Amino acid sequence: MTEKLAIGIDIGGTNTVTGLVDAQGRMQGERSFKTKAYPYFDDYVERLVQDIESLRRTRPDAALAGIGIGAPNGNYFSGVAENPINIRWYEHAADGSQGAQILTVPFVETVRKHYPALPVVVDNDANAAAIGEMIYGGARGMRDFIEITLGTGLGGGIVANGEMVYGQGGTAGELGHVTVRPGGRRCGCGRRGCLETYVSATGIVRTMLEILADDPRPSKLRSVAVECLDSRMIAEAALDGDEAARAAFEMTGRILGEALANFVAFSFPEAIFLFGGLAKSGDLLWEPTKRHMEANLLRNYKGRVKLLPSGIDGANAAVLGASALVWKELRKLESR
Amino acid sequence: MTEKLAIGIDIGGTNTVTGLVDAQGRMQGERSFKTKAYPYFDDYVERLVQDIESLRRTRPDAALAGIGIGAPNGNYFSGVAENPINIRWYEHAADGSQGAQILTVPFVETVRKHYPALPVVVDNDANAAAIGEMIYGGARGMRDFIEITLGTGLGGGIVANGEMVYGQGGTAGELGHVTVRPGGRRCGCGRRGCLETYVSATGIVRTMLEILADDPRPSKLRSVAVECLDSRMIAEAALDGDEAARAAFEMTGRILGEALANFVAFSFPEAIFLFGGLAKSGDLLWEPTKRHMEANLLRNYKGRVKLLPSGIDGANAAVLGASALVWKELRKLESR
Repeated sequence: MTEKLAIGIDIGGTNTVTGLVDAQGRMQGERSFKTKAYPYFDDYVERLVQDIESLRRTRPDAALAGIGIGAPNGNYFSGVAENPINIRWYEHAADGSQGAQILTVPFVETVRKHYPALPVVVDNDANAAAIGEMIYGGARGMRDFIEITLGTGLGGGIVANGEMVYGQGGTAGELGHVTVRPGGRRCGCGRRGCLETYVSATGIVRTMLEILADDPRPSKLRSVAVECLDSRMIAEAALDGDEAARAAFEMTGRILGEALANFVAFSFPEAIFLFGGLAKSGDLLWEPTKRHMEANLLRNYKGRVKLLPSGIDGANAAVLGASALVWKELRKLESR
Repeated sequence: MTEKLAIGIDIGGTNTVTGLVDAQGRMQGERSFKTKAYPYFDDYVERLVQDIESLRRTRPDAALAGIGIGAPNGNYFSGVAENPINIRWYEHAADGSQGAQILTVPFVETVRKHYPALPVVVDNDANAAAIGEMIYGGARGMRDFIEITLGTGLGGGIVANGEMVYGQGGTAGELGHVTVRPGGRRCGCGRRGCLETYVSATGIVRTMLEILADDPRPSKLRSVAVECLDSRMIAEAALDGDEAARAAFEMTGRILGEALANFVAFSFPEAIFLFGGLAKSGDLLWEPTKRHMEANLLRNYKGRVKLLPSGIDGANAAVLGASALVWKELRKLESR
């Protein structure tokens, strides 16, 4: 029987990475280009198709099963991305000059024109990570789990009864915008106190600055220009024993652990997976998060929810997640 | 064709009410007795069976479709209630005297002995209310909604993708125990700051006392003994223009509205239904809840989630909810 392979596309503000992935989540080949090199959306899709075709030619023995796209604000129901963060595409005006910015980006419709016979699906990054976890990763066989992606922001993908929780409009699971401190830090969404203003690569920098403002102890991070401070420096300083940096991880873990305890009261998952850069800070983040989560859990949940690192392979995780959308879609089509 | 009717049983600390209900949610007959009159669990179940049989005899033309039981801490998966709040049952000791208290109450197993051919299911009150809403009430045709029950405490029932969210152990949806004020009011669960310590019939009394302690304005509620103050008095005073009582509703609505906005970020439901006594305070609670929910919603959710009173008939609502468990179970069995 001809082997089937899925295309996974991770659309980021910097790079667009396309991968050819087998049903076990093994990467068979990868292509990438700079997203900003194609400011016109039709040119961008043409380039995507070139990369897909180039990958397809490397495995003439196999057949494409479908195309999965992980994009900021990608919506599984409508097939579009509304105002994808940090990415702008334009139309060609009639005279060939730059036309209007495309605010609702029609990924599925446009890619499907090139592949009318294949399933083409889009979803946001966190849902793609959750589906990757379910198909290839640590959530195989689980019917109830939560995926938390920790990057510049914080994303959530919730699976209940074996199905993604999309809600009425495809945009459930905005866990980065749960209010954890009413009246707290300003968020890019226009509100205050959102979880991601505390727990994310940018959130921990804000916490670090507050601690340096409040705590007179010496810290090597005081010599860094404010605009240069990043989560990796804080992690390195903490590992070197810098007390202020350790306090920043403690506070981050506290707020994340408290929030996770609330998420458990909602959907009582078997496990919560942490995915992405900040999740790799190891015990620095892990230990306080777990401690505060357990301390805040309602009695009948205590000790029953696993906190786990994502089981999807690091460097290619976002592409693998996007490719998993294809296998999930095929399962859904088969079960009808 | 013989009409099928469901038995719904609402088990409360004071009364146990059994109803015979048709598939459209119309009550065909009702029996009730004092729960505490039967301290031995086997006697209690015998009495339940008497009531079921008495109801069955009123409709010899119809057939029983099944038995649904709504009980505090009822667990759909295991068929038991763990430590049901405010209710104690005992075993008969070998010598006929009072034996051990039954901490894990085996509702399904015990009732099924009498009705081996029928579906017998138990669930907690809030999930039964949610399923009642889905089968007979305002959520008919909705795939994503949240039911909030407001009584002595606050309960939650979450439906996503048309299915109850039970989580790994049947006890998801403990929305009364989401922490809304870290370090806040003591809760019966042993933690602090739980939603139900603010938003419930008892929560609003605590709020009222805090306001009377803090705010020097006159209030007719100052003449009431502290232990006598209840949510109905606060509602009456507020309707009479008592400013302090109005402030208590404003604060209750504020905390509920903020919490609902967070729940929306989780599952983006079509609607949130408020069920139970306090939900009937009308605009007193409704107006501030809606205002604070909308003010706290993330932009893409604003104006898209309905806040609605339960569509299940008042006096019998808990029995109707319990009976709906039967129709839901039959749908599930049929879809297999």
